[in-house]
Amino acid sequence: MPARIPLDANAILAATEEILRRHGPDKATVVDVARTLGVSHAAVYKHFPSKQALREAVTRRWLDRNRDTLAVIAADGAVPPVQRLRTWLHAVLAVKQAKIREDPELFAAYGILATAHSSVATGHVADLLGQLTAIIADGAADGSLRTEDAEATARVVFHATAKFNHLAHAAEWQNPGIDTELDEVCSLLLEGLQAPTSP
Amino acid sequence: MPARIPLDANAILAATEEILRRHGPDKATVVDVARTLGVSHAAVYKHFPSKQALREAVTRRWLDRNRDTLAVIAADGAVPPVQRLRTWLHAVLAVKQAKIREDPELFAAYGILATAHSSVATGHVADLLGQLTAIIADGAADGSLRTEDAEATARVVFHATAKFNHLAHAAEWQNPGIDTELDEVCSLLLEGLQAPTSP
Repeated sequence: MPARIPLDANAILAATEEILRRHGPDKATVVDVARTLGVSHAAVYKHFPSKQALREAVTRRWLDRNRDTLAVIAADGAVPPVQRLRTWLHAVLAVKQAKIREDPELFAAYGILATAHSSVATGHVADLLGQLTAIIADGAADGSLRTEDAEATARVVFHATAKFNHLAHAAEWQNPGIDTELDEVCSLLLEGLQAPTSP
Repeated sequence: MPARIPLDANAILAATEEILRRHGPDKATVVDVARTLGVSHAAVYKHFPSKQALREAVTRRWLDRNRDTLAVIAADGAVPPVQRLRTWLHAVLAVKQAKIREDPELFAAYGILATAHSSVATGHVADLLGQLTAIIADGAADGSLRTEDAEATARVVFHATAKFNHLAHAAEWQNPGIDTELDEVCSLLLEGLQAPTSP
């Protein structure tokens, strides 16, 4: 019988990710995770009451892995908001490109899970929108960005950069011109956000 | 033996689409199409030398079905370029929304084919970019839109509206807020395109 180790949620999620990496999303079940850890199903269920809860938690963990990196960029008051907006949009793309490069199979497995558990992806997007809203609000406060509603403007900017932030475009993120394309979209959006109100 | 009818490329493509609608992309082969039409494989191969050629042709025909409608909007000199740009971007979304509503199964089947035969999709996008370039060039000519390179600006606008023109987002096109979202993105892009050059 395998040795019992103290079991916390993190150990369960790490084992789930290892299964995802090796076998894809179909095998990421409570039964498989319990077997890998050498514990009973009940021990896993104590932390995650269903297969859905387990999958949502592991997907959210993966989506949020770079949240703090991005939050630091969004909150960096030393960088003017116009430049910070561009840097942040590039960083969102860069962290996703890095995830693909580091482990394409795991990225594909999580892509399937994130699409299947859309409420998790919605929560992740809400976090990103919060960061973007903060940058735009800083720009409104110092007069460098023009907006009547920072949150609404953040949504528009996020929609206009879907090609660079939405998982459905992941196959395009390794194209050689993708960073230039994002930079061009940033420039046009910033022209609009910096434009003076019509007289 | 089934009656032989005069066989042209259009009849073959119409039969292929009918097979796609009923059975999905897997069954859209020369053998199945020939059986449906009651002709020999050779008769189909005379028009389409391979399964790939047949699939590309039927996909292109579907993608291009609304090209003329959009071309008329793009070329309508009676509408000012700023307004025409917005109308055209909405029309691109509207023709795709209509295709989903009319026949969701066929849309899904063609979505798979368009993704698998990316050169066909590239040709379709090039056509759309040509229309968009013409609108922006008209705006540059009458001074209502600011651009140094209408073709490059068209690409930026197209990338910034990927959420509303790229098949990967088809699942979002029936969301109630989607037209408003596009309108907001259009407004921001037009702010940027109408902005005066910095002094």
